[in-house]
Amino acid sequence: MDAEQKQVSVNNERAEAAAGFFPLDRFNAFSDGVFAIVITLLVLELPVPPSTEPILPALAESWPDFLGYLISFAFIGGIWISHAGLTRYMRRGDVVSFRLNLVLLLFVSLLPFSTHLMVAHMHGADASVAVAIYGLNLFMESALITALMHHAARDRHLVVDAVDDERVNRAYRQRRTYLILVALAIIVAFIAPLLAVGIYVALAVAFLIQPLIGMWRSH
Amino acid sequence: MDAEQKQVSVNNERAEAAAGFFPLDRFNAFSDGVFAIVITLLVLELPVPPSTEPILPALAESWPDFLGYLISFAFIGGIWISHAGLTRYMRRGDVVSFRLNLVLLLFVSLLPFSTHLMVAHMHGADASVAVAIYGLNLFMESALITALMHHAARDRHLVVDAVDDERVNRAYRQRRTYLILVALAIIVAFIAPLLAVGIYVALAVAFLIQPLIGMWRSH
Amino acid sequence: MDAEQKQVSVNNERAEAAAGFFPLDRFNAFSDGVFAIVITLLVLELPVPPSTEPILPALAESWPDFLGYLISFAFIGGIWISHAGLTRYMRRGDVVSFRLNLVLLLFVSLLPFSTHLMVAHMHGADASVAVAIYGLNLFMESALITALMHHAARDRHLVVDAVDDERVNRAYRQRRTYLILVALAIIVAFIAPLLAVGIYVALAVAFLIQPLIGMWRSH
Amino acid sequence: MDAEQKQVSVNNERAEAAAGFFPLDRFNAFSDGVFAIVITLLVLELPVPPSTEPILPALAESWPDFLGYLISFAFIGGIWISHAGLTRYMRRGDVVSFRLNLVLLLFVSLLPFSTHLMVAHMHGADASVAVAIYGLNLFMESALITALMHHAARDRHLVVDAVDDERVNRAYRQRRTYLILVALAIIVAFIAPLLAVGIYVALAVAFLIQPLIGMWRSH
Repeated sequence: MDAEQKQVSVNNERAEAAAGFFPLDRFNAFSDGVFAIVITLLVLELPVPPSTEPILPALAESWPDFLGYLISFAFIGGIWISHAGLTRYMRRGDVVSFRLNLVLLLFVSLLPFSTHLMVAHMHGADASVAVAIYGLNLFMESALITALMHHAARDRHLVVDAVDDERVNRAYRQRRTYLILVALAIIVAFIAPLLAVGIYVALAVAFLIQPLIGMWRSH
Repeated sequence: MDAEQKQVSVNNERAEAAAGFFPLDRFNAFSDGVFAIVITLLVLELPVPPSTEPILPALAESWPDFLGYLISFAFIGGIWISHAGLTRYMRRGDVVSFRLNLVLLLFVSLLPFSTHLMVAHMHGADASVAVAIYGLNLFMESALITALMHHAARDRHLVVDAVDDERVNRAYRQRRTYLILVALAIIVAFIAPLLAVGIYVALAVAFLIQPLIGMWRSH
Repeated sequence: MDAEQKQVSVNNERAEAAAGFFPLDRFNAFSDGVFAIVITLLVLELPVPPSTEPILPALAESWPDFLGYLISFAFIGGIWISHAGLTRYMRRGDVVSFRLNLVLLLFVSLLPFSTHLMVAHMHGADASVAVAIYGLNLFMESALITALMHHAARDRHLVVDAVDDERVNRAYRQRRTYLILVALAIIVAFIAPLLAVGIYVALAVAFLIQPLIGMWRSH
Repeated sequence: MDAEQKQVSVNNERAEAAAGFFPLDRFNAFSDGVFAIVITLLVLELPVPPSTEPILPALAESWPDFLGYLISFAFIGGIWISHAGLTRYMRRGDVVSFRLNLVLLLFVSLLPFSTHLMVAHMHGADASVAVAIYGLNLFMESALITALMHHAARDRHLVVDAVDDERVNRAYRQRRTYLILVALAIIVAFIAPLLAVGIYVALAVAFLIQPLIGMWRSH
């Protein structure tokens, strides 16, 4: 940037700030930080068998921990990709989108807790409640990213350009399907908690094996 | 950037550095990292009920942990938004702003400790001290971001342009109101600690529900 | 950027997103976050001798912990440099590369667990299994970064330009050599686990001392 | 950027990569991440007094923990500012600078361990060793950032422009003074460990109070 361009840019920034807008760089950096930490903290919950025990049987016995790790990793990764997909279309934020994002990150940050709770109680008397709370956490995350999409799509100042309506509608349909499946899993949790876990696994696996299918197709 | 522009930019950078200025990219990245980690570490304090206990009564009993989680999340998120709001107006930093920021981040990093302390002692004999220390932590955070604002606003080299004075004054008034309310809570802590906690909750809730009101208004 | 350029840039971004492409900034930021956290979490496993014990003998006795710390630090650092080296050639991502990257980060995140497992069992009856699992983790990481390279190199839309074929082939040869050495260590683990650890150490040391040799040569 | 500029930029990137250069964006992002995590992990070591004990005497008794927290925070913050100050002058990295940086971050990551060690043994029989190890950690950090400065300053391809020699020499002098003071503290540790701690405190305080003096002067 030469001096004149710099001046234009500086004036733009001032006008942006005066109008109550926030640049997205810190929105993205902070969100990426929270997603990266949450997805990495999950590993702290994995139990290392004590040195006196044979490893493979001990690991096999703690399969719920590894299952919880895998599906939570997939869900956090999935929401992160949705978040990065959304901000592609945004050119700036406002106070509302910054705060909605914080509430979204609140539920993202809770996922290691919900995972630990579900894993610890999966074979206990209170499995239904634990499995339902996990589903509720997923549901809230997804509801909040949908709210963020709504807010950005409604306010034409925030998106890069008049966004293709068909594309927006397709994204809404996908989110709605996901929300319905998670809501279904929450209900199922009270009848057959392990079946509800099966729905979570199916959603997570569908997300994790897709890259391989995608690779196959694209070559 | 073509070669000529690159040269201009490179010379600018050199001149900036020679004058003792620092670019803001690392200031922002480091701050975003610390805020993101602190806000996420809070979840490690949440107690998972053991698998032999029913979940909901156990969770209900540890309500101070969840309350502490929520309000600390809101306060850290709130300071982060203030920080991002401030750096919108800044175009570079200097050694003083970098060090002031470090002292600010020192108090931000202490919040998980203060939260844990308040939560553990909320029903104990020493609740007043614990609740007051939490308030003191909030107060120091806010005082330091105010000092950072002062430093940036006074030094015309650091801000994007001669900043709108009315806007600066409004920001100062907001910070002063917040500082007074937190100082009040610290005093109240020595008379009725749970009432002081109530003030923290009110401040945090006011911050957390604002996005929903904002959404309502803007559509 | 002046207004016209901004318009071009905004239109580009929209076209990019419509074609299913993702900008790399968040891909890089999220990956850097995960690498940084994983490499730093390793320190939490290092045992501090209790205050009643003499320090040096206690530290000497827990040499496997420090060895594990060093080699895992070197391996994570090495994969991070490979990752940064790869994204130099990329100009954007797609859904497949984002998901492949997530699977890569899954194995990166597991390394503190595998390290802890290997360290705890290095002198136990089940050392072979522990050392082989560590090798498997390294192998999967390397296989996934190779898959990411393959995907990027095959899809001409993702790389900065028609990349120099010789350079790509050299990178593949390096990765293949590394994969063969790690596979060898996994086999050796079942015959002589400490020898397999020796191979890991050799690979890690080769990586860590290279900068010093590089410094020597370049001056 | 318009299409032509983009082409130039893309070709530049390819030429950069072909010549073995790395862009600094990921170098900075990864380093900022590690610094931010290390500085924040320190808080996990602070002991929360149990709810049955009065808070202030318990906190007063664990003063070495808080002292360790403060000085390690100041040292990590100080090295981070030096690091950000150095990369101001750099326009790209190479494999050597990336690996030297990793070795630097290895010692930065060890600081929470060294801090914990020093704090736990400060009143023990082995205080000298613990205090000396802490000093050794500080020394290695500082030696490595000096090596990184040397490497960047010697290779004219890495710095933004022929850097002002006087400025480089001043930076070297500052680092040399710091290294001598830390080496002195290591020697003192074997005679009077608490005096060595005093030197660390003096260095840290000098760093922490400087912003306030700086504020005073600049207004």
